[in-house]
Amino acid sequence: MSVVAAKPNIQMSNASVPLVHEVKILDEAGRTKLAHIPGERPLTIYLDKREVVTLMTLGSAPEALVLGYLRNQRLVESPDDIESIQVDWETDSAAVKTRRSTVDIDALTSKRVVTTGCGQGTMFGGLMEEMSEIRLPDGPQLSQESIIALVDDIRVHDTIYKKSGSVHACAVFERTPEGGVKLLYFIEDVGRHNAVDSISGLMWLANKPGKDLIFFTTGRLTSEMVIKGAQMGVPFLLTRSGVTLMGLELARKTNLTILSRCSGKHFEIYNAPERVVFNQKTQ
Amino acid sequence: MSVVAAKPNIQMSNASVPLVHEVKILDEAGRTKLAHIPGERPLTIYLDKREVVTLMTLGSAPEALVLGYLRNQRLVESPDDIESIQVDWETDSAAVKTRRSTVDIDALTSKRVVTTGCGQGTMFGGLMEEMSEIRLPDGPQLSQESIIALVDDIRVHDTIYKKSGSVHACAVFERTPEGGVKLLYFIEDVGRHNAVDSISGLMWLANKPGKDLIFFTTGRLTSEMVIKGAQMGVPFLLTRSGVTLMGLELARKTNLTILSRCSGKHFEIYNAPERVVFNQKTQ
Repeated sequence: MSVVAAKPNIQMSNASVPLVHEVKILDEAGRTKLAHIPGERPLTIYLDKREVVTLMTLGSAPEALVLGYLRNQRLVESPDDIESIQVDWETDSAAVKTRRSTVDIDALTSKRVVTTGCGQGTMFGGLMEEMSEIRLPDGPQLSQESIIALVDDIRVHDTIYKKSGSVHACAVFERTPEGGVKLLYFIEDVGRHNAVDSISGLMWLANKPGKDLIFFTTGRLTSEMVIKGAQMGVPFLLTRSGVTLMGLELARKTNLTILSRCSGKHFEIYNAPERVVFNQKTQ
Repeated sequence: MSVVAAKPNIQMSNASVPLVHEVKILDEAGRTKLAHIPGERPLTIYLDKREVVTLMTLGSAPEALVLGYLRNQRLVESPDDIESIQVDWETDSAAVKTRRSTVDIDALTSKRVVTTGCGQGTMFGGLMEEMSEIRLPDGPQLSQESIIALVDDIRVHDTIYKKSGSVHACAVFERTPEGGVKLLYFIEDVGRHNAVDSISGLMWLANKPGKDLIFFTTGRLTSEMVIKGAQMGVPFLLTRSGVTLMGLELARKTNLTILSRCSGKHFEIYNAPERVVFNQKTQ
């Protein structure tokens, strides 16, 4: 298992597994065909030798997933607190060693809130309560062309989804000096919460603050997704899919711009439209 | 809050909340429009006054959700163990009273496995281990016409999804004396795990064994969905979407028939095709 250094200075493995698998199927006429499906495997996280959780993941970016999971669950306060993340697919485990643990893990993990993705996600501690303290500043703005360009970038991006389906994608874009947008990270996972956690981990590793970024997901913006967006401080949450009422209410409280049904040139603004610059008003 | 008796003899509330909400949005041209989105709200389950979990749900069938959740998490062994389920949307809580508790809840909830739906679902205890003991008997069979008729039933069914999007549906069908299939239960939720749990609860309430039923979901068949299908003893799992490798491997171990990409007359058989009767072989 090769070990690569990353900034902040975390010793990380670079574990990899096959992501797409070929299987024999029968179609509706009984004809044998080959199909491709995504992998899904357990990854048990040990924080200083303490078992925290087992995630079911595609496995495309396990180290980033572990880091982002610990970040979004508030089990680690800063990437500098982490000395190493070692993922081993032989044992389906991730060993995380901290330099100093500033968090009372027992207290945090004592309260379990099961949330909806398409599923029953998990949040530890009083994340919901924290939302009342988060309110993103107004701005920056995003132009209509940039939104359309961004959605097109996602459309043409080579993906596991195109090969196998059954995965969700999350991505973040950053602004270019020319005022456009550039794809920064693109992560797919069988779990859309894993995908956003992995993005969050990559942001921490590169010291990228959320305020300059635009977040896109193929999945729905339910409460937990909006909470994670607010935690990461990303003012723009875009989805190809839809939003729930609770997701919208959390976006209103935290001043997030929500763009729903993003497809082709189409999008729907559900909150904080003042961040969107319309180039041609057609009314 | 009206109270209705159900068989098995569980005193249950019949709590209801608005499921679809109208909101003002701006489209890509800055035009104000009305959109409909699904509700999403927390429901905290108390089992004999002990807080078990908080689910985020649409709220269409909360009593069945609570019962099915307790069933699928093995927190209750039999519906007869339950005296009452009282859901109160004023406090977003469900109070479950047992006649006798035959389960060591503390032991079960001590181990947390976070699974993927589109999200990070939660399973307590060693559900994964139990899978090695489950193997469904061969048969019964399902004809090609029945599969196509079933998929068409779902297509024409009036749904929250058609009004608001952003929900997943799960349904079970039963066989008719004439050899066809009939829709038995149809449940939508912001969480597809909630939808399958609700179906499981309804099956328990009506004493419907899984062996005679066919399960359909709009969501993906990830490991946890297949585990729940196996627990319910339903030999047919159909999805409009896809399947993950782990979902497929669990179906192979437990002898479940998996039909993927069910749409129109099209479907793909991923496991146990001997349960499918082809009427016209086109090769």
